[in-house]
Amino acid sequence: MFSNLSAGALGLSLDHPTAIDLAEKHGFGGVDPDLGFLRSLDGTAAIAEHAAAVRERGLQWGIAGLPVPLTAPAEEFRAALTDLPATLELLTAAGVTSVGTWLRPMHDDLNYRRNWVLHVSRLNLVGELLADAGLRLGLEYIGPKTFWSTERFPFLHSLGEARELIAEVGRPNIGLILDTYHWYTAGESAADLAGLTDADIVSVDINDARDDRERDEQQDLDRRLPGATGVIDLAGFMAAVRAAGYTGPVKVEPFMKSLAEQPVDEVLADVSQRLRDAINS
Amino acid sequence: MFSNLSAGALGLSLDHPTAIDLAEKHGFGGVDPDLGFLRSLDGTAAIAEHAAAVRERGLQWGIAGLPVPLTAPAEEFRAALTDLPATLELLTAAGVTSVGTWLRPMHDDLNYRRNWVLHVSRLNLVGELLADAGLRLGLEYIGPKTFWSTERFPFLHSLGEARELIAEVGRPNIGLILDTYHWYTAGESAADLAGLTDADIVSVDINDARDDRERDEQQDLDRRLPGATGVIDLAGFMAAVRAAGYTGPVKVEPFMKSLAEQPVDEVLADVSQRLRDAINS
Amino acid sequence: MFSNLSAGALGLSLDHPTAIDLAEKHGFGGVDPDLGFLRSLDGTAAIAEHAAAVRERGLQWGIAGLPVPLTAPAEEFRAALTDLPATLELLTAAGVTSVGTWLRPMHDDLNYRRNWVLHVSRLNLVGELLADAGLRLGLEYIGPKTFWSTERFPFLHSLGEARELIAEVGRPNIGLILDTYHWYTAGESAADLAGLTDADIVSVDINDARDDRERDEQQDLDRRLPGATGVIDLAGFMAAVRAAGYTGPVKVEPFMKSLAEQPVDEVLADVSQRLRDAINS
Amino acid sequence: MFSNLSAGALGLSLDHPTAIDLAEKHGFGGVDPDLGFLRSLDGTAAIAEHAAAVRERGLQWGIAGLPVPLTAPAEEFRAALTDLPATLELLTAAGVTSVGTWLRPMHDDLNYRRNWVLHVSRLNLVGELLADAGLRLGLEYIGPKTFWSTERFPFLHSLGEARELIAEVGRPNIGLILDTYHWYTAGESAADLAGLTDADIVSVDINDARDDRERDEQQDLDRRLPGATGVIDLAGFMAAVRAAGYTGPVKVEPFMKSLAEQPVDEVLADVSQRLRDAINS
Repeated sequence: MFSNLSAGALGLSLDHPTAIDLAEKHGFGGVDPDLGFLRSLDGTAAIAEHAAAVRERGLQWGIAGLPVPLTAPAEEFRAALTDLPATLELLTAAGVTSVGTWLRPMHDDLNYRRNWVLHVSRLNLVGELLADAGLRLGLEYIGPKTFWSTERFPFLHSLGEARELIAEVGRPNIGLILDTYHWYTAGESAADLAGLTDADIVSVDINDARDDRERDEQQDLDRRLPGATGVIDLAGFMAAVRAAGYTGPVKVEPFMKSLAEQPVDEVLADVSQRLRDAINS
Repeated sequence: MFSNLSAGALGLSLDHPTAIDLAEKHGFGGVDPDLGFLRSLDGTAAIAEHAAAVRERGLQWGIAGLPVPLTAPAEEFRAALTDLPATLELLTAAGVTSVGTWLRPMHDDLNYRRNWVLHVSRLNLVGELLADAGLRLGLEYIGPKTFWSTERFPFLHSLGEARELIAEVGRPNIGLILDTYHWYTAGESAADLAGLTDADIVSVDINDARDDRERDEQQDLDRRLPGATGVIDLAGFMAAVRAAGYTGPVKVEPFMKSLAEQPVDEVLADVSQRLRDAINS
Repeated sequence: MFSNLSAGALGLSLDHPTAIDLAEKHGFGGVDPDLGFLRSLDGTAAIAEHAAAVRERGLQWGIAGLPVPLTAPAEEFRAALTDLPATLELLTAAGVTSVGTWLRPMHDDLNYRRNWVLHVSRLNLVGELLADAGLRLGLEYIGPKTFWSTERFPFLHSLGEARELIAEVGRPNIGLILDTYHWYTAGESAADLAGLTDADIVSVDINDARDDRERDEQQDLDRRLPGATGVIDLAGFMAAVRAAGYTGPVKVEPFMKSLAEQPVDEVLADVSQRLRDAINS
Repeated sequence: MFSNLSAGALGLSLDHPTAIDLAEKHGFGGVDPDLGFLRSLDGTAAIAEHAAAVRERGLQWGIAGLPVPLTAPAEEFRAALTDLPATLELLTAAGVTSVGTWLRPMHDDLNYRRNWVLHVSRLNLVGELLADAGLRLGLEYIGPKTFWSTERFPFLHSLGEARELIAEVGRPNIGLILDTYHWYTAGESAADLAGLTDADIVSVDINDARDDRERDEQQDLDRRLPGATGVIDLAGFMAAVRAAGYTGPVKVEPFMKSLAEQPVDEVLADVSQRLRDAINS
């Protein structure tokens, strides 16, 4: 696995060339692709050239966002599918190999099984379209109870459920985005990660939780940097991910607004070090 | 439909002969059967005689409890099945036509779909055994969020989900126990009851909710007598049940400890009147 | 319900104006819309004018074909979705209210449950897109064993399965296309049609079967005109459809090449009479 | 893995002591337990003594039959559950670790999904009861089309479907009984066996098919001894089973009546040699 700079996940507004420069400067192993930047280049040849330059600087691609609103009303979803091939052409020209999205853990109208059918339906189609383009799709389950309990119908919010969804969809290019924060808030342990292989994991996020809140009181958008509080068993998580033979990107996504107020180099030096520590532990 | 005296649902400790006397005295249309009392009689002939006497007093049978722990560990469930035929013989000798149970709306270990499989599995078998004995099975979904949100995995807690479960089980003798309290706390309206028929409904409970709490703050075991606060749209509910052509028992289950402290005749006169008002509205 | 002239279902090559003339001449109550003809007209105003003229001749629209290859590879399906709005605009401009397709009852690679997921996935999306345009979708199950047994994995080939599929998809604008031929070859009886309502049925086909073959030897593409042999219980079927309150089109689809060799007027006079007899029986 | 003498699977009527003698004489690694024989012994102590004696002769236990009629009507199934603990006590006293059954690949009344619900329901309960007793349950899918196509509703008849069933049931003590004959008639190859582990496989049967019939014409009860015709790719199958790390019993089940007419020693010497060849290939 490799440390991955995702400016968006850090809440930093960096243009793509700057993000690449900083990723190299601070020793990250990779950087998230930037679809807007790819669109601004002059066609697939220019994109390929850009990607080659990034690779030459020793950086791998992290993961792009899924360019389709997975559970949007049918007409909005259909319209997005119309545009999908052009977007996938940009991503594949850059050599990007995976995209990802999170799964909203509740719904006010669709009960669990109706929401399940909607997710399976959309993922079955999107998964095959992405496979045709050589792309994997990572799905991130969301653990905090303060989030999944806010509407009439809680939906999937655990690793086991996410794995069942992927199995039901039946597309081998679909896998998991694991995040220590969701793993912790879902009440899971290293045992729950047993049996996973590299083929099951598309991306990994590591974060810590506030130490002044109980597990069920943690807020999805108020986290801590990995290792900061020790609330989450980062070592146990990383050991399990290592045992799975995971080879992909690892990033942090702390949702801490304060990061944007600190000097960028300071933030990235700290984040890069924390990722290296976790990966090499 | 007919008003039904269920001493247990009222929190009253009445022996069965007394309950029958009071049901007649206060003009109820029916009374819940009492399995313990049936067991105390001397065989099926005595039970049939007892049942005939109840009928002669103008009382129909309400609904008995399901004599099997639906989601117990396998060995406990198996042992209960061993005893089931003897119990069903008592109930059918008395002319009882339906049993019921409620569905626990959450689980700490089984996620929604795993819990669904457990429920379908057990209901598929129990439903057929009850059908062989000529008995219907009523299932009651539980609506309060203060209940379904208390463990890791919320389970079914709405009418739509209960109907899907019954369809999946595929036993035509399984139907619903409707309770205004769960209907209200689940955020449902009369529209959700549209399309139901008498064949879909096994029993009906009517209750009201506290008027000093929001819907999502209501507690399962702290209700009010039907019509007491007007929080719940009793008229809309009863109109829908009437439109369904429902012919079965209607009772109250307020979980108000204060009832046990009032004179029984006073309580039952009030309850009987409330039931008649609702049924004849 | 009304008799419907579907030239395609009769194997006749009639241009649309001729089909309309002949439908009127022979007393049909409706005629299938012709998407190619609608496309040849000069925009939605011309289409609306055409449709008004058809209505003035006392003809209702039958049913159009679903303009999407339901189970095609994802990219082909996606491309068809890109073109769908334009096609739906033509159909709705003409006042067409329903489209239909049949369900292939076997697959060489996808087992039953994987094929089920594919169908649910595609129907969930297509059903919502059609609903947005005010169109119903009829699904026809295919009964002959000589067809469903020809590949590794038989798929749905009965009314009960088709109803389960529609329930799982959960789109109220999706219903059934019933065909006596599939009803017979699936081993079904009038009892299987009990409980259906007009909302469940989008279109009806009536045909008869050869009287020199056993049920399981009947071929999907070798049928007889309704009432011709009496193998199929047409009266029982029509009584059940009438009891459902069905209001839509009824046509024949005999797959008899000999019809194309007979004088068209002779064929249509005969077919129209058979439809009237069945509808009025 | 080890070669296993199953007299029943060979169509031989051997009493249990004779079967044990012959298993040792002909170099089998194991022998199927005999429930009738265990019942004839004087209690669990005698059974344990018998089992110890078998082990001392170098023989492991093969697999016993599931002592419950999995898909029987509910009352018959319930009655069998009443007797189950006593039977399981005998098996566990003998140190037997697994039981097995085959899955009937069609049904005349239950369609695929209704039959699936029945199987999941019964297996969910039986699987947990067996797990409580420390027993694994092996399920054998049945491949011949001449069998699954004989009723209205084909059911599961392939490895993929059997694995999906086991996943849905969700009991880790349930696994597969693999048989080359079903694997071949289901149209499967070594690739279909990829990814299996020892935990997925409870027992293995190896047989060959007639060389004068096409795959879809093969009859379930008319097979050949493993390697006899070379129709089935025994080497590819065994390589996959070996790659899975399989440690359990391997037997033959040829359904050849002619075996009962040959000298027993001749038959067993031949079968034992064929099993050794396959295991050591």
